[in-house]
Amino acid sequence: MNKKTITILGAGLVGKAIAEDLSRDYQIIVCDKDSGRLTSLKDQGIRTCQTDLSDYSSLIQSMKGADLVVGALPGFMGLKTIQAAIECGKDMVDISFLPEDPSGLDPAAREKNLSIIYDCGVAPGMGNIILAAHARTMEVTDYRCYVGGLPFVREWPWQYKAVFSPIDVIEEYTRPARFIVNGDMVVKEALSDPELIHVEQIGTLEAFNSDGLRSLMKSFKIPNMIEKTLRYPGCIEYLRVLREAGFFSYEEVEAGGKRIRPIDLTASLLFPQWQLKPGEEDFTVMKIIISGHEHGKPLSYEYTLFDHFDKSTQTTSMARTTGYTCTAAVNLMMQGKFQEKGVFPPEQLGMDAKSFNFIIDYLKKRGVHYEVKMIHT
Amino acid sequence: MNKKTITILGAGLVGKAIAEDLSRDYQIIVCDKDSGRLTSLKDQGIRTCQTDLSDYSSLIQSMKGADLVVGALPGFMGLKTIQAAIECGKDMVDISFLPEDPSGLDPAAREKNLSIIYDCGVAPGMGNIILAAHARTMEVTDYRCYVGGLPFVREWPWQYKAVFSPIDVIEEYTRPARFIVNGDMVVKEALSDPELIHVEQIGTLEAFNSDGLRSLMKSFKIPNMIEKTLRYPGCIEYLRVLREAGFFSYEEVEAGGKRIRPIDLTASLLFPQWQLKPGEEDFTVMKIIISGHEHGKPLSYEYTLFDHFDKSTQTTSMARTTGYTCTAAVNLMMQGKFQEKGVFPPEQLGMDAKSFNFIIDYLKKRGVHYEVKMIHT
Repeated sequence: MNKKTITILGAGLVGKAIAEDLSRDYQIIVCDKDSGRLTSLKDQGIRTCQTDLSDYSSLIQSMKGADLVVGALPGFMGLKTIQAAIECGKDMVDISFLPEDPSGLDPAAREKNLSIIYDCGVAPGMGNIILAAHARTMEVTDYRCYVGGLPFVREWPWQYKAVFSPIDVIEEYTRPARFIVNGDMVVKEALSDPELIHVEQIGTLEAFNSDGLRSLMKSFKIPNMIEKTLRYPGCIEYLRVLREAGFFSYEEVEAGGKRIRPIDLTASLLFPQWQLKPGEEDFTVMKIIISGHEHGKPLSYEYTLFDHFDKSTQTTSMARTTGYTCTAAVNLMMQGKFQEKGVFPPEQLGMDAKSFNFIIDYLKKRGVHYEVKMIHT
Repeated sequence: MNKKTITILGAGLVGKAIAEDLSRDYQIIVCDKDSGRLTSLKDQGIRTCQTDLSDYSSLIQSMKGADLVVGALPGFMGLKTIQAAIECGKDMVDISFLPEDPSGLDPAAREKNLSIIYDCGVAPGMGNIILAAHARTMEVTDYRCYVGGLPFVREWPWQYKAVFSPIDVIEEYTRPARFIVNGDMVVKEALSDPELIHVEQIGTLEAFNSDGLRSLMKSFKIPNMIEKTLRYPGCIEYLRVLREAGFFSYEEVEAGGKRIRPIDLTASLLFPQWQLKPGEEDFTVMKIIISGHEHGKPLSYEYTLFDHFDKSTQTTSMARTTGYTCTAAVNLMMQGKFQEKGVFPPEQLGMDAKSFNFIIDYLKKRGVHYEVKMIHT
């Protein structure tokens, strides 16, 4: 029997892990404009295609023949990718951190009988799925999510490596952070409200407000919801200084007789510093606390993920935790276990108990363990 | 009797204060390429000349007819200015923070019978003059100088305003700092060895190694000499982050499809943030400790300067402390009290007791008080 074909757009760290995972059961084609990124996949016998996906016709072309498309491009390319999938009539799972709300494309996807899930990584992604699973049986009054991907080796000043698209990392530092307090939406600047958090395996980390709730704010009426991103202590202040000084700005300024966007120079200087070195090990930490009432009793569920770099396959933890959430969803769709039509955030997967268990199980088989504790409060 | 003529090159904050001070006794012409800087001087009846002094022939032209030239340009223009003065046969006092050692021009100046004093501000400048005064009568074993010019109002993140050429401020953050330990020259990066210092009128400041000894290292064989620059606590670390990240680099990088020197963008972003607002008040603090033996007895002299913005004339403290040191030297020369020929650092003035007293007295009359304490150790 011929294997079904999946096209993966983007061969970054996460795209690669997705390709490797799915290549066991599917015919895979990975597209990227950077041929260097495709080499290691080619060496594993995975089909690749060098093409500039920022060009819409190339994007359309790359999807031809696919049974499903995976979007693993930077956030700013996300919406275009979903639009192209709908135009081509393809089911899709997307993990780009797209700035727009794509739910406006829902009618078009329904009309074409397509299933499209976006934000389907670890965060956004697993937080949404886990909250949805509990919202089925609980009256949730409080949702808190702390999440971060960091290198084990801490180098001053950033103590950070970009384990996904670095331009999306800067987005986390600039997009105003929306969260819910007593039923009202509160907007604060990103990098605000630094808070020290203890993580057993690592020590003290620092959390800041980031705009990570996204679709959850529409999907659930929960009076208190917040997501914060984790960094090593100190880094947040340096980033605030850079932002305050204007180095993250997209507005052109005159410098040395040329017009330049500060963000472009910042990217040129910092992205090489933020790049994981070959073999450099990262970890992902996520702590989710869901509080409320279940069967009339007050209680909390606390989920903890501590995942690290896979030495045997040289796969980063961020690629594992993000990529395998995505591939779990791909498998649900390919196996006919998720058949709803439209454009969905990942919480749609968590609302179904079987799908939720499938995902948790799928991740566990790949060593990504979400430990859960129930706390009577 | 006709007044003698002094040409002042540069109408920045310091150049203006120099012009205003000297205009009582001399015919003044102030040259600057920025006509906006000249307006307030014109309003006071001071002659001005708009000309681009980065052009060597304009520089030469501007000196014609002067009895003495004052250089008050950014450091990178300093050496050219001294060369031009020698070419034109003009005595000169310079306060630019020039990166080069101009002593190589000494023979040329002697040959033309000229007196030229460079580094003749507060720091470099008064530190050199004070040390020289004591080196006449003491065996100095230790010289320490802490100096800084700061705004009273502290705005995060820089808590700083550039009270002189901002490109020279960045020089202080990048030039390796040379100092003397046990008779040996030690070189450390700028911004190193942060140290908290208590200043009675302000509270805690933070000092870092800066390359401020300059000519003192050649002029004196003192086993321990150091200069540190003062900032409000915290700022130094942010500057270290910027430097570490590459934002102070003069090497072109590719950014947004253009070649750009990071320093140019940094200057475009930070200089407006570092600009004193109209009426914004600054202060200058300097603490000099000279230790050793006098007449066989161990003792220290501790000089303290705490000077602030002059509300009545809207003159910054940095302009007062730097500019009036310069104008004191100008008067010494114009009154025939300093007649040595050659290119000299300011310590040359301090070696003569009469000149030293003249300067201290000249500054005192303008409200710039150096308090001195003798401590038997």
